[in-house]
Amino acid sequence: MAISRDEPTTSEMRHDWLTDRWVIVAPQRTERPIDFVHLPVQVVSDQNCPFCIGHESQTPDSVACYYEQSARSHSGMWRVRVVPNKFPAVPKAPHDGSNSNAGDVSAGLQLEVQEATKAFWGASSELAVGGSSDSPTNGLFRRRDLSGGHEVIIEGPEHRQSLSQLDRLTTRLVFHAYRDRLHYWLVQREFSYAVVFKNVGHQAGASLVHSHSQLISTDILPTDVARVAGRMETYFEQKGQCLICSTVQEELEQAVRIVELTSDFVAYCPFASRLPSMVTIVPRHHQSQFELLDDSLLDQLSWLVHRLVRRLEHCYPEAAYNYIIYTAPQGHQNTAWFHWRIELFPRLSTLAGFEWGSECFINPQTPEAAARHLRMAGV
Amino acid sequence: MAISRDEPTTSEMRHDWLTDRWVIVAPQRTERPIDFVHLPVQVVSDQNCPFCIGHESQTPDSVACYYEQSARSHSGMWRVRVVPNKFPAVPKAPHDGSNSNAGDVSAGLQLEVQEATKAFWGASSELAVGGSSDSPTNGLFRRRDLSGGHEVIIEGPEHRQSLSQLDRLTTRLVFHAYRDRLHYWLVQREFSYAVVFKNVGHQAGASLVHSHSQLISTDILPTDVARVAGRMETYFEQKGQCLICSTVQEELEQAVRIVELTSDFVAYCPFASRLPSMVTIVPRHHQSQFELLDDSLLDQLSWLVHRLVRRLEHCYPEAAYNYIIYTAPQGHQNTAWFHWRIELFPRLSTLAGFEWGSECFINPQTPEAAARHLRMAGV
Repeated sequence: MAISRDEPTTSEMRHDWLTDRWVIVAPQRTERPIDFVHLPVQVVSDQNCPFCIGHESQTPDSVACYYEQSARSHSGMWRVRVVPNKFPAVPKAPHDGSNSNAGDVSAGLQLEVQEATKAFWGASSELAVGGSSDSPTNGLFRRRDLSGGHEVIIEGPEHRQSLSQLDRLTTRLVFHAYRDRLHYWLVQREFSYAVVFKNVGHQAGASLVHSHSQLISTDILPTDVARVAGRMETYFEQKGQCLICSTVQEELEQAVRIVELTSDFVAYCPFASRLPSMVTIVPRHHQSQFELLDDSLLDQLSWLVHRLVRRLEHCYPEAAYNYIIYTAPQGHQNTAWFHWRIELFPRLSTLAGFEWGSECFINPQTPEAAARHLRMAGV
Repeated sequence: MAISRDEPTTSEMRHDWLTDRWVIVAPQRTERPIDFVHLPVQVVSDQNCPFCIGHESQTPDSVACYYEQSARSHSGMWRVRVVPNKFPAVPKAPHDGSNSNAGDVSAGLQLEVQEATKAFWGASSELAVGGSSDSPTNGLFRRRDLSGGHEVIIEGPEHRQSLSQLDRLTTRLVFHAYRDRLHYWLVQREFSYAVVFKNVGHQAGASLVHSHSQLISTDILPTDVARVAGRMETYFEQKGQCLICSTVQEELEQAVRIVELTSDFVAYCPFASRLPSMVTIVPRHHQSQFELLDDSLLDQLSWLVHRLVRRLEHCYPEAAYNYIIYTAPQGHQNTAWFHWRIELFPRLSTLAGFEWGSECFINPQTPEAAARHLRMAGV
């Protein structure tokens, strides 16, 4: 495949409008010698995996459970379980009844449970949002309590390691769980922030092998999340249109960074990718909240992400990877400027001192080359 | 040692004034199970190390070289060589004469070379600073050329892996090289930004084993560097004093996060450390530019950093680590608000999806516990 005329062969800087950061694209850096041989990470026995079927007692009780059949009989095997994290980074919100083991859901019936929860808790959370209780050393050393949720989405009863190894139904139910739990935290409880993320492999920060994702919700909006949302708002104010909608239009016209296109979604390698083979997946028609996706769009999306992971793994066999679902935080929901997105990226390199010190990333692969390789992958 | 009454045992959030970010301190997270066994990274043979003595022809010619004796005879062995990076992330600045092999320096005589270079190039750079040449797609997809320097500081003629393995003289000369090269890029050439950083070990982003540091200088100020410098300026405007000076005063009073104290420097674990066992080293008396340090302070500092690395390695044997020298970028030099600092941190964990998605870090170790362990380390 020909190299695009837009594709640099030496370093250049590219600006990411979303984060207002410059990235150094340095394709010539791939030639440098490496002293280290990376041995595969050894995985301990899966005999005692707390996420495998039959070991349910090793996790807290589920807050939602998704079954194979659409009937409510529950005689079948669970496909997806959502449980509170046993070692939560975020303490449980006061009066959180979600850990009630009442969350059994068959495919297609998720909303009933949520409605029940909503009725119990009311439409708005009792928690102060974004407030900050200062420490005695006012200003310089501020502390605050943290409240929210930290959940684990267990993806399949079998000991699989990657989304690409799940069957179509399980993949679909995984995405239903993402939506439903984001809906629970953001719409029903009205927390400031919630994010779904997936770590696959040790290099991606996973501690357990069995395929799973996590949801963290907090009562405070992280500074950088607020800043990026603010950038979308600024773009909208300046240009009268959504930043991501404009980007998608431009990407489709330039057609050098597109990886895959479906009727409702587009996947592309962002112009100013911070990391090699980073892929952004967005809805083609403006939508701010992932948690409001209907079943049919969710099914289409789940299979697209499954295919994209297969493309990544074709290019980088057994690579660790992450994906992250960025949906509108509080204050940006149902707006014309916030456009939800998923970022998917393999973990091929380690952050070095320069990136830590400057937050300016050096990406040794052009996004155009990345998209070309991913498109060519047989899936 | 007793646990400080300020030390949390469950999650809390702490605010970092410098970056305006909240960090989640979650000491209970260390209890979670781990499926992965991390095998030591294998290192290839050092026979062909381009940084070892006798292999000088494998690197570009040196731009500065530091010798053992204070005389200029150069009959002795070099201790520290500075060479342009053979695979630079940043293209060489136009008319950069630094790659002239004229930079031989004996300890104590560094400034002579710099003066000669300055006379040749003049006090100010001919490069536009901070400018941005937009691409045809104005605004959304901006590109710009990048210009500056990318140098490697080779630390000792022998194949050592860590700063802690260097003798006192070599360590001293390494810090002289840091100062001199920062002076070259920031004072003489007046580039927007320059940073010195050290990557030790594969997990810290190093590609070569032989102890070395790097300097990157660019003609544009990275967004986040500008933001942090702006935060220091804001604090000064609000409080009438330097943020770091205030922090040092408070740290010395609280005395729970101090690791080491010398007559002119203090090392402490920052209140809102993003990573476990992060250490900040700053001068006790306000100073904005690392590159203006005099020889005597530099010698004191070099030995302090050497000791701190030994403390880290005592707590985490063979851990990968980074350190970064943050000196005043253009626009903040010689000010009452910018205070230079060094950040030193072992690489014990991997960034996972949550950190990528929110830039809100989860630190499983309290800075108070980190400081206690580091203080107790026998060095």
